[in-house]
Amino acid sequence: MPGEFEIIERIRRQVGPPGPGVLQGIGDDAAVLEAPGATLLASSDALVEGIHFHLSYMSPRQVGRKAMAVNLSDVGSMGGRPLFALVTLGLRRGLPEGFLDELYAGLLEMGRTHGTQVVGGDTVTSPERFFIDVAILGVPGEGPPVLRSGARVGDRVAVTAPLGASGAGLAWLLAEREERLPAGARGAAQEAVLACVRAHLEPTPRVQAGQALAACGAVHAMMDISDGLASEVNHVARESGVGIRVRGGDVPVAPEASEMGRLLDADPFPWALSGGEDYELLFTYNPAAEDRVQAALAGAGLRLHVLGEVTRREEGVTLEREGQLHPLPPAGYVHLQD
Amino acid sequence: MPGEFEIIERIRRQVGPPGPGVLQGIGDDAAVLEAPGATLLASSDALVEGIHFHLSYMSPRQVGRKAMAVNLSDVGSMGGRPLFALVTLGLRRGLPEGFLDELYAGLLEMGRTHGTQVVGGDTVTSPERFFIDVAILGVPGEGPPVLRSGARVGDRVAVTAPLGASGAGLAWLLAEREERLPAGARGAAQEAVLACVRAHLEPTPRVQAGQALAACGAVHAMMDISDGLASEVNHVARESGVGIRVRGGDVPVAPEASEMGRLLDADPFPWALSGGEDYELLFTYNPAAEDRVQAALAGAGLRLHVLGEVTRREEGVTLEREGQLHPLPPAGYVHLQD
Repeated sequence: MPGEFEIIERIRRQVGPPGPGVLQGIGDDAAVLEAPGATLLASSDALVEGIHFHLSYMSPRQVGRKAMAVNLSDVGSMGGRPLFALVTLGLRRGLPEGFLDELYAGLLEMGRTHGTQVVGGDTVTSPERFFIDVAILGVPGEGPPVLRSGARVGDRVAVTAPLGASGAGLAWLLAEREERLPAGARGAAQEAVLACVRAHLEPTPRVQAGQALAACGAVHAMMDISDGLASEVNHVARESGVGIRVRGGDVPVAPEASEMGRLLDADPFPWALSGGEDYELLFTYNPAAEDRVQAALAGAGLRLHVLGEVTRREEGVTLEREGQLHPLPPAGYVHLQD
Repeated sequence: MPGEFEIIERIRRQVGPPGPGVLQGIGDDAAVLEAPGATLLASSDALVEGIHFHLSYMSPRQVGRKAMAVNLSDVGSMGGRPLFALVTLGLRRGLPEGFLDELYAGLLEMGRTHGTQVVGGDTVTSPERFFIDVAILGVPGEGPPVLRSGARVGDRVAVTAPLGASGAGLAWLLAEREERLPAGARGAAQEAVLACVRAHLEPTPRVQAGQALAACGAVHAMMDISDGLASEVNHVARESGVGIRVRGGDVPVAPEASEMGRLLDADPFPWALSGGEDYELLFTYNPAAEDRVQAALAGAGLRLHVLGEVTRREEGVTLEREGQLHPLPPAGYVHLQD
C-alpha cells in the first residue's frame, strides 16, 4: 500500500486545482471555503481501533475526547473557531457496557470546552474494529486563516510548547502492552509516566493559542503537530516553497519525556522530533514582530519556543546538530505505515 | 448491539437540546446551522465494505459515486445546494489495482454533476474492510430548508418516482452472490435486471427536485428514502407529531421491480415498501397547492406520486391494504441490524 504522503498527492492531482469557493483545498489542516455570506473552515480526522489506539489502555471517554481534540486542533491551527461537528461511528459487537455513553461524554465535554456542538453524523456496523470519524466546521477567528503555505525566507520557526511527551507516553503504553517494560521501571517516577501517558491519551488542542497567533498579524504559516515535528516542517517547507533549518539543540524536549527516556533507557530526542501527536502548533513568523507573537502566546498561557528559521528552498529541510547540517526527511509518525 | 433507532435516540438524549446556532441538530437528513453570515446544511454518511456493498458486484467507481450520491441526497432532500465534501477513507491491503483512482473518479464525477467539490478529508488504515465516510456541506436553495418535522394534518404524502427497483436489484445481486438464482432467471429479461441492479448500485440523488419542491412553498416535510418508505414515513410522523396513512394500492411500484418479482418469484411490494436505497424523495404538501408541487416536479423531469395522507397522531402510522388498516412499523432496511 502506498504511504500517506503519496496517497494524498495522488488524490490531490486527481481532484485538480481548487474550483470556485475553495480558497484552500486538500493539503492543509483544514479546507478554507467561501460559502455565500461566510468563510468556513472544514476538516475531518478518523481514529481506528488497533491502529490509532487500543481500548486496553484508552477509555471510551478518552477516545471521544481525543477524536474531538484532534479535529478542534485542525481548525485551531489555522486560527479558526470550531463551531460544529459531525460524528460517524463504526460500531462492532462486544464493545464494553456503556461504551457509547462514555464515548459521547468525552466528545461532548471536549467540544464544549471550545464552543463546539455535535450536530449530526452517522452510525454504521464495523464488524472487526470500532472507528470514529469526526468532521468539523468552523469559521476564521479575528485574523484570516493561517495556511501552511505562507512561510517566508527569514521567518523564525517556533512551537507553542516542548515536545515529545506524547511519543514518550505511547512508547510506555506499547512497552507495557507488550510486557517489555525494563525491570524497575514500573512504579518509578509515576509523575513523569502519568504526564506522558496523559499527553498521549488526552491531548489539548491549541485552539485559543491558534486564534491569538493568527490575530497578531505576524504569523505567516501555521499547522498542528500531529505526525511529528520532522514531518510537519517538511509540509510547511513544501507548501511554502522554502527551506527550513531546525536547530537540534533548540528543539524543546518536554522534561517528562526526558525523565521517561531515563526510565526506558531511550533517547527522548526522537520523540520530540518525530514522535507525533503532541498537537502543539508549529508556526513561522516575522522576527521583527516577535513581541507581538510573545504577547499572543502569553495571552493563551504559553511561551515562545524558537527552534529554527526559514531559508531559501535550495537549502532544503535540514537539522543542525553539533555544528553539522543533516537533511531532515519527514520520517514522522506515518499513520498508514504498517 | 442496540438497533440504529435506539442508538440515535440515546445519542440525541445525551447531546441534549440544540445550542446556539443549531436550527436543526441530530435527527434529520442534514443539520441546519447558523454560522456568522450564512445558514448551512451539513451531513455525513458512511459505507462499509461487506455491510453496505461487496466489491464482488460493485466497482470502485460505483462505490465512489454512491458514497457521494447518498450524501448529496441528504442535502437535496432538504431543498439545499450541496457545495463541499470531505472524504475519509479507511484503506486495507489487497484492494484492486487502481482502486483509489477509480473510487475518486466516481466521487468527483457524481459531485461535479451537482456542483459539489471534494475539499479535504482523511486517509487511515482499516485492516479488514474498506470504508468511506463522506461529510457534505451545503446551503439552502431558493426555499428555506424543509425538515422532517413540518408535516401537517391534511397534507398529502407523495414520492418523486416509483419505488422498489433498488431493493429488487439488491435481491438479485445477493441471490447471484449466494448462487441461488432460480433456474431460468439468468439471461432472462436482461433489461429489467440491469435497470434494478443499476438503481441499487448507481442511485440518482434528487437534488434538483428537492430544491424545486422546497422553493415551491407548498411542501411541509421532506426526506430521502434511504432505509425504505415504511421507515421514513415513521420518521416523518414521529418528528412531526402526526399520523400517516399509506394506501397500499397507491404505493408506486417500479415496473422493473415488478418484472424482477416475476423472475425471482417474489412479491415486489415489500421492495417498494421497505427495500430502501431508492433515494427518491418522500414529502408531504398542502393539497390546495398541488399544482405548484406538480409544476416543481415537472421542472425536474418528474411526476407526482401520491400514496397517502397525514392524519392526527392518534391514528398512528398505518397501511391500508384491500380495505383494511394495518399498523405500519418502520421495518425498513436497518443497516445496523445483522
